[in-house]
Amino acid sequence: MSNNTPENVLESTLQGTLQNIRIVMVHTSHTGNMGAAARAMKVMGLTDLALVNPKSTPDDQAVAMSSNATDILHSATIVDNLKDAISDCQLVVGTSARQDRTLAWDIQDSRSCGELIAKHASTNKAKVAILFGRESSGLTNEELALCQHLVHIPTNPDYSSLNIASAVQILAYECRLAALALATTSATKENSKEEDEWVTADDLDGYFEHLKKVMIDINFIDPKNPRYLIPRLRRLYARSGISRSEMNILRGMLTAIQKQK
Amino acid sequence: MSNNTPENVLESTLQGTLQNIRIVMVHTSHTGNMGAAARAMKVMGLTDLALVNPKSTPDDQAVAMSSNATDILHSATIVDNLKDAISDCQLVVGTSARQDRTLAWDIQDSRSCGELIAKHASTNKAKVAILFGRESSGLTNEELALCQHLVHIPTNPDYSSLNIASAVQILAYECRLAALALATTSATKENSKEEDEWVTADDLDGYFEHLKKVMIDINFIDPKNPRYLIPRLRRLYARSGISRSEMNILRGMLTAIQKQK
Repeated sequence: MSNNTPENVLESTLQGTLQNIRIVMVHTSHTGNMGAAARAMKVMGLTDLALVNPKSTPDDQAVAMSSNATDILHSATIVDNLKDAISDCQLVVGTSARQDRTLAWDIQDSRSCGELIAKHASTNKAKVAILFGRESSGLTNEELALCQHLVHIPTNPDYSSLNIASAVQILAYECRLAALALATTSATKENSKEEDEWVTADDLDGYFEHLKKVMIDINFIDPKNPRYLIPRLRRLYARSGISRSEMNILRGMLTAIQKQK
Repeated sequence: MSNNTPENVLESTLQGTLQNIRIVMVHTSHTGNMGAAARAMKVMGLTDLALVNPKSTPDDQAVAMSSNATDILHSATIVDNLKDAISDCQLVVGTSARQDRTLAWDIQDSRSCGELIAKHASTNKAKVAILFGRESSGLTNEELALCQHLVHIPTNPDYSSLNIASAVQILAYECRLAALALATTSATKENSKEEDEWVTADDLDGYFEHLKKVMIDINFIDPKNPRYLIPRLRRLYARSGISRSEMNILRGMLTAIQKQK
């Protein structure tokens, strides 16, 4: 059997991306949840787990719940404070159960965030951390302040009790699917040199901030009821990716609109 | 508070779709998995659970794992054979861990299957069943024969041990997101008969005509020297593809800009 089948090349590209994604569990109470999270990671190809100040270190209950993903548990980094867990990460994303409308602009849904993370981890070969807070109360404001992005998994507003390992499962799944889409695209693209470079997550954020401002200025959106317009456009541009020269056109146009006022 | 806020209308449309989706667990061994599946369902807004010939009926372990989704457990239908669980369903989808290309069925990935299920459950108001097999061995060939579609969740080929409640979680999540996209589209669309399909080449031409006019109006481009701006944006949107609802946002914004003049 050859090692260079298209499937193997794809899988190896995928692994390269997914190993740059670290799951960080902050002050987790139940060791069973650590084990279930390890299993959820491994089944999607993620390997890097960090435990920040866990109530106790992984035990038999963790191993039982990990269902043979014990390698992930055993190689997990255990640190006392969050900063040590993310010091080598270029992108830090915090999970949030809040749907607070006043924060709505900064919160991405799990799908577009998975696309952003995969792009970052594959293109820039940069470490990305996804933070999961306490089972009961999530991440504190201080911890959230260390994140460039917040991600929210859409849930039933009447019952949003998503288990922490299930949240890990969904985000790991989104990362795998997005990384798979990227790996497939780059494998099928003949000519990748002619394109100029992709913009960074910060550039994209800057664009959407600017877009939001203009949309409000021209009364296209009501800031009190933004109707998911920005998240939908984020998804569109996450699908395509945006090159620097394209971003210049899009931003130039926003500036030209503002000059009309 | 009014009951007719856009959010409430959206949520009620969503509930209408999701209540048509039944999770069917066939011959499940561990009652804890039933509880965890109930929680996974409820957090995504699904309510209809059927247990086919379970090794034992939901017990304390199921209740503990359900984390207050006990209503789903208590209202679960328990039947002796699979046919009784799906007799009122127009669409039956079986989950499969196999990636065997020789299988006669058309295997869909979880994302496109979620879209298919949501469309079915919303448009046709038809009951849809998603079948989950035994923890150890999945669905038998006889059970698979009752399905119109098979769905596969992409996993790590070296470790595909996805917990059954996690599989329920991912598919329930995909159904919710697909149903949300459908509900959002129909809520923002004047003409709800159109589906959220990709726009046609004619629609794209119409958009770029409109865009060009606005760009000239706001002095962003000089009609005598348009600098390839439109062709570059055409390339961007060709990469992503544009859905009808996205096109509505983009065109709506152009119209809002024109109203400012």
